[in-house]
Amino acid sequence: MIIVMTDPTTEQIDRVLGKIRQHDLDVHCLKSYGKTIITAIGDSAGYNAEFYERMPGVEKVVSILTPFKLVSREFRQENTVVKAGSAVFGDNAISIIAGPCAVEGYEQLLETAIAVKKAGACMLRGGAYKPRTSPYSFQGLEQEGLTILKAVSEEVGIPVISEVTDPRTVEIMSQHVDMLQIGTRNMQNFVLLKEVARSGRPVLLKRGASATMEEWLMAAEYIMAGGNENIVLCERGIRTFETYTRNTLDLNAVPLIKQLSHLPIIVDPSHGTGNWRLVNPMSKASLGAGADGLIIEVHPCPEEAVSDGKQSLTPCNFEQLIKELQLMANAMGRVI
Amino acid sequence: MIIVMTDPTTEQIDRVLGKIRQHDLDVHCLKSYGKTIITAIGDSAGYNAEFYERMPGVEKVVSILTPFKLVSREFRQENTVVKAGSAVFGDNAISIIAGPCAVEGYEQLLETAIAVKKAGACMLRGGAYKPRTSPYSFQGLEQEGLTILKAVSEEVGIPVISEVTDPRTVEIMSQHVDMLQIGTRNMQNFVLLKEVARSGRPVLLKRGASATMEEWLMAAEYIMAGGNENIVLCERGIRTFETYTRNTLDLNAVPLIKQLSHLPIIVDPSHGTGNWRLVNPMSKASLGAGADGLIIEVHPCPEEAVSDGKQSLTPCNFEQLIKELQLMANAMGRVI
Amino acid sequence: MIIVMTDPTTEQIDRVLGKIRQHDLDVHCLKSYGKTIITAIGDSAGYNAEFYERMPGVEKVVSILTPFKLVSREFRQENTVVKAGSAVFGDNAISIIAGPCAVEGYEQLLETAIAVKKAGACMLRGGAYKPRTSPYSFQGLEQEGLTILKAVSEEVGIPVISEVTDPRTVEIMSQHVDMLQIGTRNMQNFVLLKEVARSGRPVLLKRGASATMEEWLMAAEYIMAGGNENIVLCERGIRTFETYTRNTLDLNAVPLIKQLSHLPIIVDPSHGTGNWRLVNPMSKASLGAGADGLIIEVHPCPEEAVSDGKQSLTPCNFEQLIKELQLMANAMGRVI
Amino acid sequence: MIIVMTDPTTEQIDRVLGKIRQHDLDVHCLKSYGKTIITAIGDSAGYNAEFYERMPGVEKVVSILTPFKLVSREFRQENTVVKAGSAVFGDNAISIIAGPCAVEGYEQLLETAIAVKKAGACMLRGGAYKPRTSPYSFQGLEQEGLTILKAVSEEVGIPVISEVTDPRTVEIMSQHVDMLQIGTRNMQNFVLLKEVARSGRPVLLKRGASATMEEWLMAAEYIMAGGNENIVLCERGIRTFETYTRNTLDLNAVPLIKQLSHLPIIVDPSHGTGNWRLVNPMSKASLGAGADGLIIEVHPCPEEAVSDGKQSLTPCNFEQLIKELQLMANAMGRVI
Repeated sequence: MIIVMTDPTTEQIDRVLGKIRQHDLDVHCLKSYGKTIITAIGDSAGYNAEFYERMPGVEKVVSILTPFKLVSREFRQENTVVKAGSAVFGDNAISIIAGPCAVEGYEQLLETAIAVKKAGACMLRGGAYKPRTSPYSFQGLEQEGLTILKAVSEEVGIPVISEVTDPRTVEIMSQHVDMLQIGTRNMQNFVLLKEVARSGRPVLLKRGASATMEEWLMAAEYIMAGGNENIVLCERGIRTFETYTRNTLDLNAVPLIKQLSHLPIIVDPSHGTGNWRLVNPMSKASLGAGADGLIIEVHPCPEEAVSDGKQSLTPCNFEQLIKELQLMANAMGRVI
Repeated sequence: MIIVMTDPTTEQIDRVLGKIRQHDLDVHCLKSYGKTIITAIGDSAGYNAEFYERMPGVEKVVSILTPFKLVSREFRQENTVVKAGSAVFGDNAISIIAGPCAVEGYEQLLETAIAVKKAGACMLRGGAYKPRTSPYSFQGLEQEGLTILKAVSEEVGIPVISEVTDPRTVEIMSQHVDMLQIGTRNMQNFVLLKEVARSGRPVLLKRGASATMEEWLMAAEYIMAGGNENIVLCERGIRTFETYTRNTLDLNAVPLIKQLSHLPIIVDPSHGTGNWRLVNPMSKASLGAGADGLIIEVHPCPEEAVSDGKQSLTPCNFEQLIKELQLMANAMGRVI
Repeated sequence: MIIVMTDPTTEQIDRVLGKIRQHDLDVHCLKSYGKTIITAIGDSAGYNAEFYERMPGVEKVVSILTPFKLVSREFRQENTVVKAGSAVFGDNAISIIAGPCAVEGYEQLLETAIAVKKAGACMLRGGAYKPRTSPYSFQGLEQEGLTILKAVSEEVGIPVISEVTDPRTVEIMSQHVDMLQIGTRNMQNFVLLKEVARSGRPVLLKRGASATMEEWLMAAEYIMAGGNENIVLCERGIRTFETYTRNTLDLNAVPLIKQLSHLPIIVDPSHGTGNWRLVNPMSKASLGAGADGLIIEVHPCPEEAVSDGKQSLTPCNFEQLIKELQLMANAMGRVI
Repeated sequence: MIIVMTDPTTEQIDRVLGKIRQHDLDVHCLKSYGKTIITAIGDSAGYNAEFYERMPGVEKVVSILTPFKLVSREFRQENTVVKAGSAVFGDNAISIIAGPCAVEGYEQLLETAIAVKKAGACMLRGGAYKPRTSPYSFQGLEQEGLTILKAVSEEVGIPVISEVTDPRTVEIMSQHVDMLQIGTRNMQNFVLLKEVARSGRPVLLKRGASATMEEWLMAAEYIMAGGNENIVLCERGIRTFETYTRNTLDLNAVPLIKQLSHLPIIVDPSHGTGNWRLVNPMSKASLGAGADGLIIEVHPCPEEAVSDGKQSLTPCNFEQLIKELQLMANAMGRVI
């Protein structure tokens, strides 16, 4: 933490230094060109920029250490590998999750599950509780959706993931699915993060559409601090001024998160573009950026999908994509 | 809804028209310059852009009607007036909510309550459950905070508002406070919106930091569709590329929301700037824009505040501000 | 400048310190918790974060001083007052510039000039060279427009402002108008800034639609460093994700720029909203925020305007606005 | 163009229809649910949303056709191939431009040119006129830089590209370099675009940091409408709220531009990340997305670079990158 003071009085400096000393930090004070620059460093729990920003004479406080700890590469140098049922994230293999936006019925899900498993997916996705912008849109099959997910999972022999939106349903969801998804709108729903942490279930933590990477890692920190280390991060596009695409897929996040954190990171090119025609090239781009996997919307008949049909691949598109990705993964020394 | 098709075949056009006819919409088809433009209009529940975007030959689908209904000016032309305890929002008077970011203790809150009431505030704010970016930051006094809020409210004779973050605490909060606040991170926590709708309690719905006005009004639509009409909207700044301020206060929203909706709207210049020095001018700006009120952070000793001290006014700053606002309100034909 | 090094070797630290010493800066080095924090301070010309960011062992470099000098409040504490013809910006009076987006002809401009002068405007605006997103849109009357501007200015007795877009036309424009406008797209057209600086003419420097306040002040610094102190800043809205308005008017900039700089600042609510219905309330909001003036689009018949009709006031709307602003200015101890 | 009117009078509708008829457009009018929806279509030069937005009874005007013509895929279906000296953009080969941010001297440039040519680059970059945020930063060697560029180009046998910032230097630059670069800050400097169009020289048109894809294509349209078809587009990152990276590289733009336009598109991962450690993975991501090439900053000694050292590769890093890219290109059926 750097505290910059402009033309401070001796008393003002002493007051700041006094407060720092209460927290047992290493401190140094440099005066030059009318500025007094106070550097304080120590255990991050011991200081808080907010305590100093409002003190007289203080111009600004700059944090110089990253606020996340448990999720950082400094805390753990080797890559974390997360297992959810038979699916594995974070090792040399690229893991593909695929399936419809929403569970619409047993037949629809079964057909999709068989097709995506055959093509090479390691996990099936399907929403039972759908967060929708409009109260008049389809809100998901809810509990019935969970029952279908579990039945199809067992029938086909593929683990399943579904989004959790309510702290009160974490327990029942944990009984039906192999991995819990925290959606983009709930990335900072701290009540939900704490409940998911408590469950111990593997978690796919999507980036908030307007969350910085720092906030995203802090959300993961909530889960790790709550005792659950089975976290996979998912870049799914951020909100920008661009209107030709639904979101702006921020692939810079992939190699940067890899530097900053030991957690696996996958990419959602379906939401990251909002346009099925872009899913194929942006899946390849994700692999190029170093992603550990992908989550892709696949629907047996996208034009009949109750939601997100626009961005869904057909099983046939998906199969073709996987073939192309395999060539690319091999060129990069990885497998699918 | 306008469906734009590029060089479609007759069969593709028929397929789109066939689907539209299933929904009993008025429809017209114009062919010109290689484009086929299909206009369909009717009860908004009857159509859904998603159904058409993936159909063969369709280039894009443009929605032309606003998706919100109950909260719109078209649905109700006169201004809605919301009452919460003795506080009133949406009539000619400008209503000021003030108080600390977080309830820190009985004495702190009592002192603030007395000061802000005397200066002209009609409601006391104070967080008991605090959504914090870091799991290591102060998370609020929780239930004890609610007890303090209720005690101070009764002692001083001022209604109180506090943020609700968990659907499981809506009921107990409703017993302790006069108005429930939905914070910026929970604007699209639909599970929470539904629970708050069910409670019937007056609600202050803050705009999500990256929510469009349309999404914000759709969040209010969730609450109204759930049977609760006591909604006050609150502009609190949006996330942009600017880093000199904590958020970019979007005052354009004030007159535009007034045009689009019958609901009252107030402004939070504390979060909207993140800097106490800007709270005074931006409060005046909010009045100029036509806001029905303000919510302002006031702390007896900002530099000792456990959170948001940087953006908090002292009781003395606050009293001065209210005096200046009164002159301005009078010039605009309003009162405080 | 703060240089943060993570687990550096002694040699790496020495290399950084050696480089700092070449620039004659005050320096201090604090080692703690695996970090080495080097604080260097001095004449800002003497250091440059870029020199250090790529050195081995360096994690990041944080600038702690603002990069602008001549435009800063620290450089000059009293407000700068800018005169352009008979118009004055930056004293206690609020200065209103008004007129059409583009000069369309002599009659149109004359009629507008008479109307806005009578209502209280101190300067007439009108574009002769129009930067347009499309090459197929009206590009302005160019030199003929300048001639009309000068003729109307003399006829009506009101100074005029017009946008300059080409370094080669700065001279001729200076002969025809009292104030040169740098438009939002040219805020970082440094070639043009240098030429305008050389001309010595009063300048209205609009904020770039995606410029931070720091970049905006640096653009002003270019002009001041080039020897021209007659600069008025103009907030005109920034680009965000919001689509209901053309831009997001960032009124936070008004009080913040007033703190950071001695230069006058005015607001453009026409471009800042893109909607004539919002111009009245946002003009009042601008005054509340402390603006020194406004620039407003007025057209005798907005629906016939060749550009920006949607955001233009009629002379009648404008007259009514000025009356309402006068009441408000008086309540704030200012005049128009 | 769709004109939406709310509860219009017959006279208001007639006025709108009358105006449309002046422009010889195909038109249809649908009335339903209180709305009147007017669809007008025809030669895009014949109508202009601005003419209708301010007419009485009009709620909004929605454009449904893209505003660009010459640069669109509809105008030309096959890919355009651009040649600049011996370099070719837009065929099956991936073209790599490399070199320092700024020309610092003959030796520096020569050394870099030899290294990047040997590694596989087809063109050398180097700035002679540098647009810098601060007037106190190094502004380039200017004319001397051009002389060095030309000398090195001939010495090594590699074509060169440099940024043009001033319409008055287009001619002299055209004599010294093989390709003119329009930088991000000048993407909407229409005066410069027109001059570059007139020169006929091959142009690299970088995307503005806050430009939509539509605005970017409209900037290209200026150049094509001016008679110059030798345009290569360059995605270089956009401005968002994220602060961990210098820009957010918007790779969605690559496949989407390929759909919308026949022009080649390359990527600048150096500016798009601002961090040399991310250049390698984001180069691969760019290839995955389908880019026709890359432009990469390479400096013989990045920590001594006068600008952008932080994001520059060493010749050794660059050589390694090209090797890895070759494997990947082969897997995708392309070459370098």
